[in-house]
Amino acid sequence: MRTYKMILEYEGTRFQGWQRQANTKMTIQEMIENAISETTGFPVEIDGSGRTDAGVHALGQTASFVLPGKICEEGFRKSLNEKLPEDIRVRSLSLVKNGFHARYQAVGKSYEYLIDTREKAEVFHRKYACHFPKPLNIEKMKAAAKLLEGQHDFAAFTDKKEEKSTVRKISGITMIKESHFLRIVYTGNGFMYHMVRILTGTLLEVGTGERAISEVVSLLKSKKRSDAGFLAPACGLKLKEVYY
Amino acid sequence: MRTYKMILEYEGTRFQGWQRQANTKMTIQEMIENAISETTGFPVEIDGSGRTDAGVHALGQTASFVLPGKICEEGFRKSLNEKLPEDIRVRSLSLVKNGFHARYQAVGKSYEYLIDTREKAEVFHRKYACHFPKPLNIEKMKAAAKLLEGQHDFAAFTDKKEEKSTVRKISGITMIKESHFLRIVYTGNGFMYHMVRILTGTLLEVGTGERAISEVVSLLKSKKRSDAGFLAPACGLKLKEVYY
Repeated sequence: MRTYKMILEYEGTRFQGWQRQANTKMTIQEMIENAISETTGFPVEIDGSGRTDAGVHALGQTASFVLPGKICEEGFRKSLNEKLPEDIRVRSLSLVKNGFHARYQAVGKSYEYLIDTREKAEVFHRKYACHFPKPLNIEKMKAAAKLLEGQHDFAAFTDKKEEKSTVRKISGITMIKESHFLRIVYTGNGFMYHMVRILTGTLLEVGTGERAISEVVSLLKSKKRSDAGFLAPACGLKLKEVYY
Repeated sequence: MRTYKMILEYEGTRFQGWQRQANTKMTIQEMIENAISETTGFPVEIDGSGRTDAGVHALGQTASFVLPGKICEEGFRKSLNEKLPEDIRVRSLSLVKNGFHARYQAVGKSYEYLIDTREKAEVFHRKYACHFPKPLNIEKMKAAAKLLEGQHDFAAFTDKKEEKSTVRKISGITMIKESHFLRIVYTGNGFMYHMVRILTGTLLEVGTGERAISEVVSLLKSKKRSDAGFLAPACGLKLKEVYY
């Protein structure tokens, strides 16, 4: 028995998210599992580091799977890329220790959220950025982001009710302005359902002045989703890296 | 009679280039002319600053057209964008002096060519960059580019035979390395058919060491297309700006 780890890049636009579903074939997981099964000749299940929502992209999603024996990694990777559509790519494939699991062993993740601040949305980033043409005070957004860093109960920042614990640690939120784009990179030990998109919506509302910087602190205390900002669109979000 | 100038942005991937053709409806010019005609209720022809080839993109293509009377520019622009597919956008539309012609009055243009140097092509730029994973010596490419600047006979750098004059002036070739991308920006008073793509192919061959820096000088003298470099793919090229 051998365990393999993959690093994956995909454009999520036309997919119904990562997770395999009974009612659609258009999921990243199904595409990759089918490509693997076509290569090995028998059904193979993969474990992703986590789900990405419909329309969300990945620069460095990870997944693990187990095969009965040894394969040539580079040949296998190329064979998968030949079978996969051009919007899903296996960037690397490597043998790892048995027992490795892409989700259970992950110790952290980073996400990046891209905002197109130009008055009219740019054609070339229309599928990879959220168009938000209102003037933004980035210094205020940075100050609010600073208050969100650290270990907190982020209950207000998820759309899923049944989380066991809503405490997470965000080790960093960095904002990079590049011409008419604002790139926000979030790094932490874990992110709940919709968490990065709600954080982004909240920070954008700070940027426009609709929300005071200090409100993010009261939000952490209130724990009410309805007090937090809007859900920023999926297309602006990329899973950047998974840490082990 | 009123003359209008448009600045256009488009992703060229699924189009057969700028120029209207009898055998296909998939040209940028036809899409825009149809949108204008649907807005005005009568047929309108537009003049682009020049043709872009199939698959070539534009950040700032320009076009002019004449209407019998005055229109509300901003309303007209919005109406066009509603009718146009999402990969073609009218960025601006303004009243200009009668007699203005987007092609005849253009005094210069800039193009940018994007190269993805990563070992495996990046998913998000697969339609906007040329994937070229060979190691490149960018200093050598810059030195060769320097020798191409200025007024020269660029006969070796076009695939069109019947040009009246093949003398052009390139005022600048700049190279910008951004993570695993190399962006080459060409500015000049005019570029012939395939010229930017052949210049790019030639510079890439200098970058890999297949071609000596000094060869670009002998190329300008030989005037033979067969001595110049390969035709870099259309997808990496964007018409950046047209100067008046």
